[in-house]
Amino acid sequence: MSQDQKRAEAIVEQMLAKDEFSRWLGIEVLVVKPASCICRMTVRDEMVNGFGVAHGGIVFSLADSAFAFASNTQGRIAMSIENGVTYPAPVHPGDRLTAEAHEESASNRLAFYRVQVTNQHDAIVGIFRGTVYKTKQEHP
Amino acid sequence: MSQDQKRAEAIVEQMLAKDEFSRWLGIEVLVVKPASCICRMTVRDEMVNGFGVAHGGIVFSLADSAFAFASNTQGRIAMSIENGVTYPAPVHPGDRLTAEAHEESASNRLAFYRVQVTNQHDAIVGIFRGTVYKTKQEHP
Amino acid sequence: MSQDQKRAEAIVEQMLAKDEFSRWLGIEVLVVKPASCICRMTVRDEMVNGFGVAHGGIVFSLADSAFAFASNTQGRIAMSIENGVTYPAPVHPGDRLTAEAHEESASNRLAFYRVQVTNQHDAIVGIFRGTVYKTKQEHP
Amino acid sequence: MSQDQKRAEAIVEQMLAKDEFSRWLGIEVLVVKPASCICRMTVRDEMVNGFGVAHGGIVFSLADSAFAFASNTQGRIAMSIENGVTYPAPVHPGDRLTAEAHEESASNRLAFYRVQVTNQHDAIVGIFRGTVYKTKQEHP
Repeated sequence: MSQDQKRAEAIVEQMLAKDEFSRWLGIEVLVVKPASCICRMTVRDEMVNGFGVAHGGIVFSLADSAFAFASNTQGRIAMSIENGVTYPAPVHPGDRLTAEAHEESASNRLAFYRVQVTNQHDAIVGIFRGTVYKTKQEHP
Repeated sequence: MSQDQKRAEAIVEQMLAKDEFSRWLGIEVLVVKPASCICRMTVRDEMVNGFGVAHGGIVFSLADSAFAFASNTQGRIAMSIENGVTYPAPVHPGDRLTAEAHEESASNRLAFYRVQVTNQHDAIVGIFRGTVYKTKQEHP
Repeated sequence: MSQDQKRAEAIVEQMLAKDEFSRWLGIEVLVVKPASCICRMTVRDEMVNGFGVAHGGIVFSLADSAFAFASNTQGRIAMSIENGVTYPAPVHPGDRLTAEAHEESASNRLAFYRVQVTNQHDAIVGIFRGTVYKTKQEHP
Repeated sequence: MSQDQKRAEAIVEQMLAKDEFSRWLGIEVLVVKPASCICRMTVRDEMVNGFGVAHGGIVFSLADSAFAFASNTQGRIAMSIENGVTYPAPVHPGDRLTAEAHEESASNRLAFYRVQVTNQHDAIVGIFRGTVYKTKQEHP
């Protein structure tokens, strides 16, 4: 295993250990690589909104976690600046969601990510874009 | 109280009653008017991310709930199409957040909302924009 | 050539013929397919902003044209609802830009597009996301 | 006139002098203050898209110029990171558009702006959000 891959995995493990909200969501990290991450979770009854479908914040939060993990894999602490999200299809309790985050482009200080969220039928249920500011501080 | 105001309050009450995730967040609805809504919540320890500050999904979800309530107050069922969010300042456990949602503009089928999230010191911690598609279906 | 392909090409040809601003920009349509489009243009001196680099509106407009063409190829008139854009790298006069628009997801009424803009060195200089509302009206 | 006001006006004057594209658009700067700017332009026949209404890039570009001017008024060179735009109503040749840009929030390195574009009937025809990175470099 390369040093870059080891570092990526160590950082995400460390982040996830402290990430109480991702744990409440039931997020599992399936794959970590430098600048990318795949996460999964299952939607529970307590995650619905007033229409009985998954609250927008649930799809957003899963995508946001995958984005946070992916954008921190390369060593420098990355802070989220801005996010956008669209919901091509509704999500229901019991749905198993997979979020795939990857870097679309990066400069020295900024990086741009895309996260696609699909359900158990491979339908796209969320498209998320995120921008981070890469600080000069390294992960310990 | 006007008919419009009565309907706005009845719809939000009905939505909140079924909104399990907003209840988990501890969201209180303070003010409802046609096309606007003010909500409040207090950030708990279980809402943090891997950096020990509130997960981006928490600020997003509070804003998204205020947006959903506000955009449904006028009778027609409104579905979220797209959201954007920025985080001007970090949020910590114990912070008391207030989200104010109001309509910026609307056509027959679409409406555009802005939600500002502030903390107990009146600092802006979230700026959220949301677009809804207004269906032809009325709230019961 | 399939009927779908013929219709896609005819619609874009018709749109471009009336699109005075795309013509001022010098936009050439390289490839049209149902739900996708590739366009190209060269940045001129009169397209710079106060910093001497291409005005943000130039990259945006190229992407927006590619998005408009792509999202109208399937017959129904599609109206832009919302766009987001990021600029991973600056653009200079003389740069030759290529915009590739494709549909990421679609429902009956809405469709979500991504447009990537690259320069002559294949560096990404723009990432654009667009949402359209698909009207019931067909292109003539 | 305060020093801050003088500096704001001098910076925008300097930017506008080099901004060839804003001049092509016919943008006039009506008001400049620290962190805000009001601009105006009239839509011409050569600014339409394939539907005969103003190209999305026109409303975007006006808003983007107002945003660029406003976000540079305080001395430090500010670079646009990300923009979002929605179009509540169509724009036609002959329409006189006014864009009002103001800062919604700022930290040391980032600032968040909102720009509202209205037509001659005071109808909102564009809502634009922009984020800048504030470099350490000062305007000369």
